[in-house]
Amino acid sequence: MSQPINIAVIGATSNVGEALVELLEEREFPVQDLHLLASSESAGQSLSFRGRQVRVRSLDAFDFAQVQLAFFAAGAEVTRTCRERVLAAGCSLIDLSAALSLDQAPCVLPERGAEGLPALTRPWCVSAPTPSAVACALVLATLKPVLQPQRLQVTAMLSISTLGRSGVQELARQTAELLNGRPLESKTVDRQIAFNLLAQVGAVDDQGHAQLEVRLAAELQQLLGLPALPVAATCALVPVFFGDSLAVGVQSGADIDVLAVQQLLEAEQGIELVEAGDYPTAVGDAVGQDQVYVGRVRRGVSDPRQLNLWIASDNVRKGAALNAVQIAELLIKHYL
Amino acid sequence: MSQPINIAVIGATSNVGEALVELLEEREFPVQDLHLLASSESAGQSLSFRGRQVRVRSLDAFDFAQVQLAFFAAGAEVTRTCRERVLAAGCSLIDLSAALSLDQAPCVLPERGAEGLPALTRPWCVSAPTPSAVACALVLATLKPVLQPQRLQVTAMLSISTLGRSGVQELARQTAELLNGRPLESKTVDRQIAFNLLAQVGAVDDQGHAQLEVRLAAELQQLLGLPALPVAATCALVPVFFGDSLAVGVQSGADIDVLAVQQLLEAEQGIELVEAGDYPTAVGDAVGQDQVYVGRVRRGVSDPRQLNLWIASDNVRKGAALNAVQIAELLIKHYL
Ligand SMILES: NC(=O)c1ccc[n+]([C@@H]2O[C@H](COP(=O)([O-])OP(=O)(O)OC[C@H]3O[C@@H](n4cnc5c(N)ncnc54)[C@H](OP(=O)(O)O)[C@@H]3O)[C@@H](O)[C@H]2O)c1
Ligand SMILES: NC(=O)c1ccc[n+]([C@@H]2O[C@H](COP(=O)([O-])OP(=O)(O)OC[C@H]3O[C@@H](n4cnc5c(N)ncnc54)[C@H](OP(=O)(O)O)[C@@H]3O)[C@@H](O)[C@H]2O)c1
Repeated sequence: MSQPINIAVIGATSNVGEALVELLEEREFPVQDLHLLASSESAGQSLSFRGRQVRVRSLDAFDFAQVQLAFFAAGAEVTRTCRERVLAAGCSLIDLSAALSLDQAPCVLPERGAEGLPALTRPWCVSAPTPSAVACALVLATLKPVLQPQRLQVTAMLSISTLGRSGVQELARQTAELLNGRPLESKTVDRQIAFNLLAQVGAVDDQGHAQLEVRLAAELQQLLGLPALPVAATCALVPVFFGDSLAVGVQSGADIDVLAVQQLLEAEQGIELVEAGDYPTAVGDAVGQDQVYVGRVRRGVSDPRQLNLWIASDNVRKGAALNAVQIAELLIKHYL
Repeated sequence: MSQPINIAVIGATSNVGEALVELLEEREFPVQDLHLLASSESAGQSLSFRGRQVRVRSLDAFDFAQVQLAFFAAGAEVTRTCRERVLAAGCSLIDLSAALSLDQAPCVLPERGAEGLPALTRPWCVSAPTPSAVACALVLATLKPVLQPQRLQVTAMLSISTLGRSGVQELARQTAELLNGRPLESKTVDRQIAFNLLAQVGAVDDQGHAQLEVRLAAELQQLLGLPALPVAATCALVPVFFGDSLAVGVQSGADIDVLAVQQLLEAEQGIELVEAGDYPTAVGDAVGQDQVYVGRVRRGVSDPRQLNLWIASDNVRKGAALNAVQIAELLIKHYL
């Protein structure tokens, strides 16, 4: 067990922040002092950690010299604003907001262990991958022995909690409005999300890609160690509160050996393989779980070189918080 | 205008059946007598057609010698049971239930006109393709001049009305149960569909494919005239009442010319292209419309040979009823 260290969680009042605090306790992470930070509006709230209440304080006045490691889960702008101040204070940083370029802050797949670690010097700065990249990379890294991916296509059907607490509230409110025949109000998203699918998350670049899609592709390439892998990604929002669903297609150079694929998935601790015939769902299986659920393992209907999978994963727990804590566990062993 | 003929609609009390009757009137289809048929349980109900009420009668005692054309929208078993009796009576048949093999009953893409018609002799028997095939084939046939598809990957996010009226009721009931904190009952589907995604529609074969996925692939190959096109398809159910959403990836032999793609889509009457930046949704755009909506036209994030599209289409209206009527309009001109 490593030496206990002082930790800060920024965005402690978010769903991801709360899950981080829960997991630091659950996994007996070597925490000495825990500092919970958010905007000045939340100052005064508190969260339970190891049987006592820890107050949430304002990020503004916080001195990062007090802590060795900070988890950033307060949106991209907060990370970008704070990054230099944090590193200058000698504090290492794990960013969950996809704010930093992958050159500045490489991303890490904790299940690959030390093998996949970038070369870092203290204080280091890494990115926790986005939830879809976490789920997809874990599955594909597991399959590396039998699969030489030539192309990758991901349709990520993201739960509305991707947009944070206000997204969750929006889906609940819109659904109630529709069921009660009241006029529909759109606030967090600009159209009806209740009983509807939104084909796009946020604005798109001049190529038509949303930032999340570009990031997902880049993270997958880095996490799999395949920088030239052609990736096509579609990220859509679905009327689900928590839990992402991914339809993944991998083009291989040779016919897919489905049995070998199943055996590898079966053997990986972080993956729960659902038997053929049955299938996993985000809400029924993945939410609240540490594992990434995989099902519908099969070739293309008329394409023996295509592997198709359905992945369900808890975007807040495994996709964000647990994965960040796993990254921290790995990094403090090697670099702190 | 063709000579008016006598028509039967089987499954007249279904959503698809009702839409068929509406469209026969709207499009001034040359109907002489209209016979509405369903199970004996519905006998006595009626639908409005050209200003008068037409009674729904039981299919059991119906004599198909009275009609020249029958639309079958009452489930696969009804079509299979009736097919011989219908043809023996000299009545032609358009099946909407995917009950018949594509050899027995080829499928037709009406927008391709006479060019795409199979050779038929009276009384003929054709399949109306499944709604995802209708939408996808129309788009890809339109793009044929600039796209030589080498592989196709479709993630079809199907609305619950795919399961008929009982599916629609199930989603409404489950949603109300969850919002009101009542225990959840699953009837039509075997798990929670409200605020959840189901990765599979119906049972799967020993390769892991659902029947709908196998059918979709075969129909696309036939409709596009590309019998060897490798197709990978995933059909999932989403908590949306009406309107399907498809994420489609087409692998091409050369870099995609996005501008040329947009121009062709823009020019096709049956397609509504949504400009870059914006995107279509099933509920906000497609439902109630005759057009198939297309948006998010772009290459793969890091794959210039991949064309990605988001398609939204009304599964009951355009996907089933309108398309079947368009097929009928084309066929009676040529073969009746
Ligand atoms: N939701 C997911 O699926 C997911 C997955 C992976 C990563 N993430 C990342 O995790 C973070 C939180 O996500 P969420 O979805 O849970 O978001 P959220 O509900 O919108 O929460 C935002 C958090 O950031 C804090 N915050 C906002 N502005 C701040 C400021 N100026 N200074 C300090 N704190 C500030 C908020 O504190 P107040 O309560 O004081 O406003 C709150 O704790 C984001 O960076 C997001 O990119 C989310
Ligand atoms: N929903 C879609 O998106 C969609 C799209 C394309 C094609 N289709 C096809 O369209 C058809 C109807 O679909 P739906 O989703 O609207 O289904 P649905 O709501 O389940 O309706 C089924 C229809 O079939 C009738 N029927 C059932 N058993 C019968 C029997 N033994 N004899 C005569 N009629 C019988 C029912 O009549 P009663 O009212 O008397 O029970 C009802 O009219 C199906 O074949 C389906 O495959 C549906």
